[in-house]
Amino acid sequence: MRYYDSLARLISHFQKLPGVGQKTAQRLAFFVLKLPVGEVESFAAALVDARSKLAHCSQCGNMTDQDPCHICRDGKRSKTHICVVQESRDVLALERVSDFKGLYHVLHGAISPLEGVGPDELNIKSLLERVSREKPEEVIIATNPNVQGEATAMYLAQILKPLGIQVTRIAHGLPVGGDLEYADEMTLSRALEGRKPL
Amino acid sequence: MRYYDSLARLISHFQKLPGVGQKTAQRLAFFVLKLPVGEVESFAAALVDARSKLAHCSQCGNMTDQDPCHICRDGKRSKTHICVVQESRDVLALERVSDFKGLYHVLHGAISPLEGVGPDELNIKSLLERVSREKPEEVIIATNPNVQGEATAMYLAQILKPLGIQVTRIAHGLPVGGDLEYADEMTLSRALEGRKPL
Repeated sequence: MRYYDSLARLISHFQKLPGVGQKTAQRLAFFVLKLPVGEVESFAAALVDARSKLAHCSQCGNMTDQDPCHICRDGKRSKTHICVVQESRDVLALERVSDFKGLYHVLHGAISPLEGVGPDELNIKSLLERVSREKPEEVIIATNPNVQGEATAMYLAQILKPLGIQVTRIAHGLPVGGDLEYADEMTLSRALEGRKPL
Repeated sequence: MRYYDSLARLISHFQKLPGVGQKTAQRLAFFVLKLPVGEVESFAAALVDARSKLAHCSQCGNMTDQDPCHICRDGKRSKTHICVVQESRDVLALERVSDFKGLYHVLHGAISPLEGVGPDELNIKSLLERVSREKPEEVIIATNPNVQGEATAMYLAQILKPLGIQVTRIAHGLPVGGDLEYADEMTLSRALEGRKPL
């Protein structure tokens, strides 16, 4: 079996995307072949455009098209609370809820010795400098509730507490609308641990 | 919450791909932002390149960068057997097995009244002309084993048989390596129906 070169190239590009295997890549490529030419050109332009225009905010590390980002620039947001997240998309997720009115700090990953990611590979040095300089009241650690996220949270707590800053971790427990029966053991155990008086 | 325009545009393009919802689109877009610029430019070029270079073969309807396609041009392939498939990617799937040495005919879809797809929307007229002209011994109908694919197979059998051509359908039954216990009722019933003496 042979692919046409241009098709093979497109498939291999799709295949590099996260969660896209060979079959899905093939499906996406064939879908693109059926799109109007203008649509495909606009897709291609959007790829290059987004990649070239967006960069990391020098203060918080969030993805932005202006430095500092619109959250760091926003005078209405409280500088006393810094929420630490793994990725820029986590900022988007939290902003969607819009309960949090403080600032963010994006680490661009989590500590994962197996993948060779230590504290030096993450945006932690600038967090320390920022905390020392701006003296927030509280640093909320909102890394993911998995092994890497927990390890990162532990590490951050260890280095931030000596600075006299309150360090908190977002709550773990049953997701709202979830079913006790289907919750995994770790989640259930965390939910019990974090119980509150009614 | 607000996205940066260029990011929003990229996300909306990813979201138009089949099987990609809002969350996946967001994930893919953020992944692209982390890729090297050269890689993103090459992805964009591959999109435009594939879409502009590939077209349908005038004989069989298969995706090709030269007309007629490499299968129709191949003198070693038997012209006595035409295998009818729904999509160009089905040709790729069958070619990967490489048991079939005849030619193909790509319908670009299946009959689906609910989606407004009738015989006239498919590449059926040219199949009829081709069959009348080239008088193959057998037309093998390899549309998908679902409602639309079956309806299309029935329709094609009805219009091809009066031309005195043998029309066959690929076999339905248990997939190799599959588990009887997990097979759905239709598949089991088809597997029984199509049983062969040992």
